[in-house]
Amino acid sequence: MAIIIDGNALSKKIKDNLRVETDALFDKTNKRPCLAVVLVGENPASHIYVASKEKACHHSGILSKSYKVENMKETELEELILKLNQDPEINGILVQLPLPEGLNEEKIIDLIDPIKDVDGFHPYNTGKLWINLKPYFFPCTPWGIYELIKEYKIDLSGKEVVVLGRSNIVGKPIAGILLQKFPYADATVTVCHSRTKNLEEHLKRADVIVAAIGKPEFVKEEWVKQGAVIIDVGINRVADETSPKGYRVTGDVDFQTVEKKASYITPVPGGVGAMTIAVLLQNTVKAFKIQNGMKD
Amino acid sequence: MAIIIDGNALSKKIKDNLRVETDALFDKTNKRPCLAVVLVGENPASHIYVASKEKACHHSGILSKSYKVENMKETELEELILKLNQDPEINGILVQLPLPEGLNEEKIIDLIDPIKDVDGFHPYNTGKLWINLKPYFFPCTPWGIYELIKEYKIDLSGKEVVVLGRSNIVGKPIAGILLQKFPYADATVTVCHSRTKNLEEHLKRADVIVAAIGKPEFVKEEWVKQGAVIIDVGINRVADETSPKGYRVTGDVDFQTVEKKASYITPVPGGVGAMTIAVLLQNTVKAFKIQNGMKD
Repeated sequence: MAIIIDGNALSKKIKDNLRVETDALFDKTNKRPCLAVVLVGENPASHIYVASKEKACHHSGILSKSYKVENMKETELEELILKLNQDPEINGILVQLPLPEGLNEEKIIDLIDPIKDVDGFHPYNTGKLWINLKPYFFPCTPWGIYELIKEYKIDLSGKEVVVLGRSNIVGKPIAGILLQKFPYADATVTVCHSRTKNLEEHLKRADVIVAAIGKPEFVKEEWVKQGAVIIDVGINRVADETSPKGYRVTGDVDFQTVEKKASYITPVPGGVGAMTIAVLLQNTVKAFKIQNGMKD
Repeated sequence: MAIIIDGNALSKKIKDNLRVETDALFDKTNKRPCLAVVLVGENPASHIYVASKEKACHHSGILSKSYKVENMKETELEELILKLNQDPEINGILVQLPLPEGLNEEKIIDLIDPIKDVDGFHPYNTGKLWINLKPYFFPCTPWGIYELIKEYKIDLSGKEVVVLGRSNIVGKPIAGILLQKFPYADATVTVCHSRTKNLEEHLKRADVIVAAIGKPEFVKEEWVKQGAVIIDVGINRVADETSPKGYRVTGDVDFQTVEKKASYITPVPGGVGAMTIAVLLQNTVKAFKIQNGMKD
């Protein structure tokens, strides 16, 4: 049976430690880190995410300022971003994605000052990740995976990592992090995706599988090597009449069977997903320290 | 026997076409694209490279302005970059690497305006490559490889690409280009490096090998699958008493034997290496057009 990687526990530890740190920062500077959250439109999932982020900020002693609007022209949104870039009270800027149709996400992300880009999605930070792993901010979900790997002291040096999925928010950046000379990383990395022909063979030779394709219970036990490390990034809703909500949340991995073969596995929920907000808060505190001339 | 990919021929075609294009641009605007080349120090190889770049600019109707200094303080070099960023006569800025000790390469590259970064090494352009393949400029050697693949109509979609080496100038960016949804790309990509344990197995399953590790004739015939496509990025000098110079130039692939198994192979010299300057010139002309509000 695999060791279950407890994302909830590490997330809580990080958030509790950040509370101690922000209280100390407040004692020293009379200021608290502040995250600006921009939410355009009525996407219900986005509203739930933003509410969780606000709550988590509160827990960790971080101020949150929310800018929630039903509708916005692109020029208005651009002006808002530029204003937040200038505002010394704002340390981090998060634009909740997806933006409604008609708003150009890439153009908006490009406008965020990289030093306030706590989501780690700005091209400057993406480039620095690939060049030397020294961006101001790493993207939250991939860095959350790396925090879990460090916490459990799983050394991936020279290991075969197979990443399923090539998204900008998970697949590509986690490949970039695990590929490079970095403690616990330094792995041989293969990125597989929809066009990959012999996926099973890649999975079967993997020491580590990072599944980030959004297909419920896609990775089956027979494709997993004995003792593999399984990182499940999927968060999928599947219909379930036995659940009061009518659905249950499942990952990209068939947990029940894969768990028996893996050495380590992240559950869904309570694994990688729990880490994303914790890293967002870490990034916001880092932003505060950089912007206030403190050593991170 | 493999088809030998002729980098000299494509490079010449591109450079000749650029001449026609820059002449037309001159007729239209009374201006020519201009590349600023900054060379600090006495590295003989760097002086040879810079001379070739100047010559190639001349061939393609591109002006080159060289700033060659024996010694420079970091602040002076920074001022020079900022001046070139501002100068409307300068379309592209190339800082010849490596810089002498005491000069921080990353800091200097960071200062170049991404819209003049014709080497494609700025983090903004690196980030854009990974996010959406729409940087202002792609790095020259990886893009030269992609130009060769297009020229020979080698469709890599769904193919197994194994990249040997994880450098910022070749290994990582070529992985990023070939991984993404892009004509002739869309491949499954594995990046191998010094820590990779079972390199032979990776090479044996590869439909395409991109060798960029700087080890003369490292890739042997017995590791190559019948019909594989071989892209050799190495440029190594090895002692050779039979040569008047006392050395010969060889790639990272044992060409004599591998050629018999491959379907396509790039020779050294005359393969990938010939493309790098051609792409630099392409980028400089693109820079001119962007900066003059023309559609690229």
